[in-house]
Amino acid sequence: MPFKIPTVDDIAQPALAARLKHLLDNKTKPLGSLGALESVALRIGLILGSESPVLREPHLVVFAGDHGLAERGVSAYPSEVTWQMVENSLVGGAAVSVLARHNGIALTLVDCGVCHDFADRPGLRHHKIAYGTSDSSTGPAMSAGQCDAALANGAAVLRSLTGNAFLLGEMGIGNTSAASLLLARLAGLAIADCTGAGTGLNGEGVQRKIGILQATLTRHSEARTPLQALAAFGGFEIATMVGAVLQAAAERRVIVVDGFIASAAVLVASALQPAVLQRCVFAHRSGERGHALMLLHLRADPILDMGLRLGEGSGAALAWPLLVSACAVLREMANFESAGVSRQNGTAPAQKA
Amino acid sequence: MPFKIPTVDDIAQPALAARLKHLLDNKTKPLGSLGALESVALRIGLILGSESPVLREPHLVVFAGDHGLAERGVSAYPSEVTWQMVENSLVGGAAVSVLARHNGIALTLVDCGVCHDFADRPGLRHHKIAYGTSDSSTGPAMSAGQCDAALANGAAVLRSLTGNAFLLGEMGIGNTSAASLLLARLAGLAIADCTGAGTGLNGEGVQRKIGILQATLTRHSEARTPLQALAAFGGFEIATMVGAVLQAAAERRVIVVDGFIASAAVLVASALQPAVLQRCVFAHRSGERGHALMLLHLRADPILDMGLRLGEGSGAALAWPLLVSACAVLREMANFESAGVSRQNGTAPAQKA
Repeated sequence: MPFKIPTVDDIAQPALAARLKHLLDNKTKPLGSLGALESVALRIGLILGSESPVLREPHLVVFAGDHGLAERGVSAYPSEVTWQMVENSLVGGAAVSVLARHNGIALTLVDCGVCHDFADRPGLRHHKIAYGTSDSSTGPAMSAGQCDAALANGAAVLRSLTGNAFLLGEMGIGNTSAASLLLARLAGLAIADCTGAGTGLNGEGVQRKIGILQATLTRHSEARTPLQALAAFGGFEIATMVGAVLQAAAERRVIVVDGFIASAAVLVASALQPAVLQRCVFAHRSGERGHALMLLHLRADPILDMGLRLGEGSGAALAWPLLVSACAVLREMANFESAGVSRQNGTAPAQKA
Repeated sequence: MPFKIPTVDDIAQPALAARLKHLLDNKTKPLGSLGALESVALRIGLILGSESPVLREPHLVVFAGDHGLAERGVSAYPSEVTWQMVENSLVGGAAVSVLARHNGIALTLVDCGVCHDFADRPGLRHHKIAYGTSDSSTGPAMSAGQCDAALANGAAVLRSLTGNAFLLGEMGIGNTSAASLLLARLAGLAIADCTGAGTGLNGEGVQRKIGILQATLTRHSEARTPLQALAAFGGFEIATMVGAVLQAAAERRVIVVDGFIASAAVLVASALQPAVLQRCVFAHRSGERGHALMLLHLRADPILDMGLRLGEGSGAALAWPLLVSACAVLREMANFESAGVSRQNGTAPAQKA
């Protein structure tokens, strides 16, 4: 049965926004001097509908899937790395395992469509649609029914999570290609501007990748709607993320967006329900070519800019303590009155000497 | 008696650097894909002389002092805000109090020369040189003897701290002026390029400030050495920080540098002992005009760029969890061999289809 897209309400609340701004402006600091941290505090206050927001039980969910297109050599690594990295994450050895552990974030892996059979174990959920998508350079990556099933899986994963914050992560050799295709199609950009080195192609490899992606775009010239494009280009992990993001937004959770692939899922979800973006905090600007353009398209202003290009949710985990700090500032900093601190000398400095 | 500048040894160790680089390159991730986090891990490994560095008992020390020059109206806030903010920090209401608390960092305030008598209490140390510096626009901010005493105080504070990581913070109405003067003199830059709005001057206020600072620079045209400039321009909190930074560097602690004023202390300390810079991790690029130029002069590549311009050590506290994460990546991430993850397909991607 077709997946029913959850309705995501507009949560712009001018009265709450004004109260949050007033609170921040009256904290004992020069006006605006906490920069982007103040924007994050304001955003989280609006999402959680609170002047004293508390982030509870953060979950980082890594959605994993394989890509038929990877057979065309669009990645510097072989497809088997997807399942190997899922295993590595489950035993705590991946970057995202280490970063989630040290930043107090629960970690869950979801097999959305990896070309491997995983044994049951704690921290892994089975939502496999197939053993990887079909090769999108020769046909659609998935059928409309598979796409619907993946969306529903994502929503189900989300509904089962406790807490009020959801961090997006992913694994999937070949998935920068899918993200580039989605960006080019849905934002109307040239594929060359949307395509980068992924896990580490050299210049020649990137040129080959661009050629393959251009041909793939052309082959699917009829796939214009967000869901048509998602089914045409894949992957299963991106489609599952789209469902999860829509559900998280409908439940008004704080969504912490990682890098290029996670942002592609948000791009699709927000094309379906624009108010999704009101629930998003963008963790970082990736070093992957295309991400800066994607962030511009989404009018997103990320927290970190450290040249990260690993995915997995690593950037979301790294940014997490800054979200916690932003809420703490809002809740716990004194204001000028309560602290007995003098205010600014009018608009121009007093002439004292 | 004159303060004896500690010797800060060169700790560049090509063999250890190569081993750390090898460790990072063999972690299960595309080469270099953790961006600036890898540079931070390398830096901390070199400082602590370890391939598995552990940061222990971080201390954020806020050095506070008043400035005679503030009487000239170079700040948007009155001088009394310095002692009021020290009090606010001690009761936990300042930004730095909140951020240190939430990021697991011990906080200490040092009265280096505030125009106020503080009662004894936990978390406050008395190292007052005088009730604020003299007005540097009419004479030296402090005597050579006062400067020596402040340097010695800073070294003494540092020697008493446990742990291996020291985060720099400061408070002092008027101290962006002192930092701008130190930058202009020691880096040979035009004062207009080094001068910003501080706590919130408007455009006219900044122009007045530049005029006052230019005249102050000219008046002290003979103060050319780092310590002459420090005594001429102040302040007591900056001089105490310089002593602390030199001592921390000599003890090979990780020094986490906050914004414009903290960087000015590092500028002076590194002019005296260049190897100081090998021990520094720069937390962020401040929104205060002059800081970007200062970082360029110090060849420093900061972690965050969030438009912070509050001082207090707030940026250092915000960046702290990223340092912890960088060390954790080095210690705990698996490598390709141990995790059984396939490596990259040669230098160019394999042609598979």
